[in-house]
Amino acid sequence: MDLPSENTQKLPHVVVVGAGFGGLRAARALAKAPVHVTIVDKNNYHLFQPFLYLVATAGLSATDIAHPVRKILQGQQNASFTLAEVQEVDFENKRLHTPNGEVPYDYLVLAVGGTTNYFGNQSVAQNGFGLKDLDEATAIRNHILKMFELANQETDPEVRRAMLTFVIVGGGPTGVECAGAISELNRLVLTKDYRHLDFNDVRVILLEAADRLLAHLPAGLSENTAAVLQQKHVEVQFGATVQGYDGKQVTFQDGKTLPACTLIWAAGVNANPLVSTLGADLGRQRRVKVLPTLQLPNHPEVFVIGDAAYLEDGQGHPLPMVAPVAMQQAETAAGNIRRILRGEALNSFVYKDPGSLATIGRNQAVASISGIQFKGFLAWAVWLVVHIMQLIGFRNRLVVLINWAWDYIFYDRFNRLITPE
Amino acid sequence: MDLPSENTQKLPHVVVVGAGFGGLRAARALAKAPVHVTIVDKNNYHLFQPFLYLVATAGLSATDIAHPVRKILQGQQNASFTLAEVQEVDFENKRLHTPNGEVPYDYLVLAVGGTTNYFGNQSVAQNGFGLKDLDEATAIRNHILKMFELANQETDPEVRRAMLTFVIVGGGPTGVECAGAISELNRLVLTKDYRHLDFNDVRVILLEAADRLLAHLPAGLSENTAAVLQQKHVEVQFGATVQGYDGKQVTFQDGKTLPACTLIWAAGVNANPLVSTLGADLGRQRRVKVLPTLQLPNHPEVFVIGDAAYLEDGQGHPLPMVAPVAMQQAETAAGNIRRILRGEALNSFVYKDPGSLATIGRNQAVASISGIQFKGFLAWAVWLVVHIMQLIGFRNRLVVLINWAWDYIFYDRFNRLITPE
Repeated sequence: MDLPSENTQKLPHVVVVGAGFGGLRAARALAKAPVHVTIVDKNNYHLFQPFLYLVATAGLSATDIAHPVRKILQGQQNASFTLAEVQEVDFENKRLHTPNGEVPYDYLVLAVGGTTNYFGNQSVAQNGFGLKDLDEATAIRNHILKMFELANQETDPEVRRAMLTFVIVGGGPTGVECAGAISELNRLVLTKDYRHLDFNDVRVILLEAADRLLAHLPAGLSENTAAVLQQKHVEVQFGATVQGYDGKQVTFQDGKTLPACTLIWAAGVNANPLVSTLGADLGRQRRVKVLPTLQLPNHPEVFVIGDAAYLEDGQGHPLPMVAPVAMQQAETAAGNIRRILRGEALNSFVYKDPGSLATIGRNQAVASISGIQFKGFLAWAVWLVVHIMQLIGFRNRLVVLINWAWDYIFYDRFNRLITPE
Repeated sequence: MDLPSENTQKLPHVVVVGAGFGGLRAARALAKAPVHVTIVDKNNYHLFQPFLYLVATAGLSATDIAHPVRKILQGQQNASFTLAEVQEVDFENKRLHTPNGEVPYDYLVLAVGGTTNYFGNQSVAQNGFGLKDLDEATAIRNHILKMFELANQETDPEVRRAMLTFVIVGGGPTGVECAGAISELNRLVLTKDYRHLDFNDVRVILLEAADRLLAHLPAGLSENTAAVLQQKHVEVQFGATVQGYDGKQVTFQDGKTLPACTLIWAAGVNANPLVSTLGADLGRQRRVKVLPTLQLPNHPEVFVIGDAAYLEDGQGHPLPMVAPVAMQQAETAAGNIRRILRGEALNSFVYKDPGSLATIGRNQAVASISGIQFKGFLAWAVWLVVHIMQLIGFRNRLVVLINWAWDYIFYDRFNRLITPE
């Protein structure tokens, strides 16, 4: 452990598990509180998840969207970092169990995020790709590029077409972004790399079980999204329920099949399995039910925030698993810890929805902010500015901008590398 | 395979194996020749090996020093690329065997480079790190950073010291560069990340079996190199012959031991094992003996260049395994193929030594060019300009410069990420 100096040893110890948007914000919100803060994460970096699909499609390199936690914490005197994967919370002794030893806490903030939900479908879990971490994003990039290299050497036209068929399951923001970006990689970049390949064989297919994309947005924007994707050579199929996937062929519930060597699963997210071990009630998507103060019932010193926490809004709808909820809850949880220390009454969390934004590719996005709907280039520009500004760290922001500007002007992807895994 | 158009099908097919400095230069030198050129490589990128140690020490990201071969070849109409690992050369049928099928050739240029030579020491090969490809560089970076994280949590002072002892074996350019860069990472960057760690426990030890570093340079520069390394907190030990390494302790030939959780082996290079299968005579370091025209004896249509080829200079010394030899030989081999096609007599290779440069870290390098010796900042500036200019591709050069300028001004390393392997 980072041994706190004598001065801080007497201070209450707040342990934040997870260095995502919620965890980092919680640690920062405690910078001036009379506590010592330790962030515990299994990775030594914060991952800018909104750009993960750009790593998967060779638009950015892994290091462009990952930032060392110790670097982020350098300016915060009362904070330290421990690299460890939390296996269990010992409420009685107020300790976390990790493979490297135990981490004691006085107050705990669990900001452990979510994982891909395959709905128990083992064949998809084994042969498809999730898109939740750097490892998976790099694996997708390597796989797509390898499929083009192999297709370029393949003499059997049926096998070649399967190699060049890219299936994305799930019409939420990740699926839409991913489908648009893969199609642009194919049409704008790889056409120049594979001059002798027939790009009529290249298909990008977005499957959605329901009857519309981006169901959280107004219906008009959903329709616009489908139309823009089709312009970008993405085939959108509604009412398509995947039954299984063996790595070479997708099988649907109605018995139909689709030969494809690539399937990306963006159709579901669950809370991190750690919260299922807490002995508390779980809501939808295995998120743990918290009090309006974000405390775990019966454990007032434990707060759960973000994707891992289940809380409903005023209308009885579960709060979405998005970064703004996690960051706002981080502020509330940190504020409530300070209130406990001062002996004050705690605040209940109230979500202020900043609106929704989703990009469909180069120059195209949809947005719904304060009831106003945007689409096309304007929405894309808003999306770009919002996300670039959020990227932590000046250097990353600059490099990301240079990469993007280059790609934008020259239709290029410099990171199209097949790297060892 | 990239199917050549009808027009090029009638042209002689030159296959270049390896997309390193030699292979790329050979392909480019044939751009205007009446041939079709195919580069075959097991990776889809060209690796800028001189900066590999910077990836290993978190100074650059993997994508900064790797460049897609197809991108490099985009401007060359008569060239294509095949992703495959060559397993065997079938001289009789003029074909290469690969796991993806066969590649026929009329002329062959083998530019397959070198691999780490552990001199049969299995324990070092298994528990130490080589530094020849991206995978190894990333593994070293992950390992160094992980050692700091674990040491920061370790309560046993002996174990902690072993975690913080970094041993580099081999006093050639790679060993010197690597030792200097690791020590700078520790002293200039990680001291800020690990405020409670005692950096007196952190040791970087460079082991050399002979009695001087950089033996290819004049003795004065070797002495300067050792002195500069010592200023940078690197311990240099001469006459140290490693017998074994179990991952926790180095054993020396004289029976002494050194506890260390990291050993990087930069003490030897062999030619790629493919050239041992050619049935031709091998010289030192298992390089295949070639004629002065760079042809393989008895196979006038096969050329071997760079690290894989054994040829002596006028004084009977083997040519060194360095990029300038490979690039100059590429020009000679390509020229000789053109001469064969025109029915002209072939040229013998004559090496023009451009001089030697080696960097010892921030602001410090040694150089010997045309008999003139440089050291210190001037040599470092020359080294920097030469290498940055060599980095293929404008975008890479710009990003590398930004990274370096940032590190230089702020003593920072943005790429200090422990990533999944």
